[in-house]
Amino acid sequence: MRHFDIEMNNLKKKLLDMAEIVQEMIKFSVDMIVKRDINLSQEVFNREREANLTEIVVDDTCLKLIALNQPVGADLRFITSAMRINSDLERMGDEAVNICEIGENLLKYPDLKPLIDIPKMAKTVVAMVIDSICAFNTSDAELADTVLSKDDEVDELKITIIKDLLEFMTDTSDKTMLIRAMDLMFIAKNLERLGDHATNIAEDVIFMVHGKDIRHLRSF
Amino acid sequence: MRHFDIEMNNLKKKLLDMAEIVQEMIKFSVDMIVKRDINLSQEVFNREREANLTEIVVDDTCLKLIALNQPVGADLRFITSAMRINSDLERMGDEAVNICEIGENLLKYPDLKPLIDIPKMAKTVVAMVIDSICAFNTSDAELADTVLSKDDEVDELKITIIKDLLEFMTDTSDKTMLIRAMDLMFIAKNLERLGDHATNIAEDVIFMVHGKDIRHLRSF
Repeated sequence: MRHFDIEMNNLKKKLLDMAEIVQEMIKFSVDMIVKRDINLSQEVFNREREANLTEIVVDDTCLKLIALNQPVGADLRFITSAMRINSDLERMGDEAVNICEIGENLLKYPDLKPLIDIPKMAKTVVAMVIDSICAFNTSDAELADTVLSKDDEVDELKITIIKDLLEFMTDTSDKTMLIRAMDLMFIAKNLERLGDHATNIAEDVIFMVHGKDIRHLRSF
Repeated sequence: MRHFDIEMNNLKKKLLDMAEIVQEMIKFSVDMIVKRDINLSQEVFNREREANLTEIVVDDTCLKLIALNQPVGADLRFITSAMRINSDLERMGDEAVNICEIGENLLKYPDLKPLIDIPKMAKTVVAMVIDSICAFNTSDAELADTVLSKDDEVDELKITIIKDLLEFMTDTSDKTMLIRAMDLMFIAKNLERLGDHATNIAEDVIFMVHGKDIRHLRSF
């Protein structure tokens, strides 16, 4: 195996490590809300530092790979896509941290029945995240396509959740109930954002595989 | 002037065009809310398509510059920073679109008095955006530093706004009032996100100028 190929495999491995950390952060943050387990937030906060460090290592690896090997074509696309995916992953970790910070407030109070469609939305978003990483790992543009197709579903779930919570807020004069409903709205927004990042990664995978920039295609 | 230098200037010009479009989108979206001028949302939507197209052109220019010139050191840092800044700018445009979409609902109703600290927060965020772009344009790491220092101010303003709006929500049983207060909360979140993107750009400028990755430095 050429030295360059070893280095490229090494980059891929580092980015998959980053993805692993961030996927855990997302899973723990979602479980924290759905299973009402306050201890899980610490798991997320512990991993944030690791994610931040790994982000810098991956970026540095990409820059060195370009500077020392002058890649072109598919190799260059792989490296620049890796930089972009790396950045999306780090921001996904931030969303997980945000969910936990809201969750720490939310879990001070008893459960707001119902959690509406939050668990369903979380499940869909986590599946998008897993599939987008898997599509990157196996260079599977078709799998990346299925991630894109779930984006509308997530948007609709978010709209339903916010509408349902608003009904709930109108019917209560209890301030703590109001706060909890708002916290759930913010969590729905964070979940939507996680779905957006998974969509970005899926678009990068398609670009990486086909060399075709499909971003914003639906809006042209 | 070398052909490569001409190409680099060309990239910088394209990225500044992108920044110009996005700055206009942000300004119009903020003015729409603060001045209650519904017509401004159309100005934002019109520019979104242009921003999306320009994003793709800038990225393509960066890839070609790397592939054809094999830059290293400061030149390579400039190009990869341009890719990152380009991506932040496009997402800032999305935030402006989000603000307008919320604004179109908000402006159906009379003004919710007071708008609390939203205009103040918007002013701070717009200044951060302008300074981050200017820092990029003039390679001014010190100006970029001042952008970073405003991040905490924006966070504090957001916390105050959400607290004030919550008080307001507790005191009303009017559903439309509740919706308007919520819309303003979401706008505060969008403004916070715009500030985050300006911070990202400022960090990229510092990396570009000094070759030092300062992301997450405060958390280590």
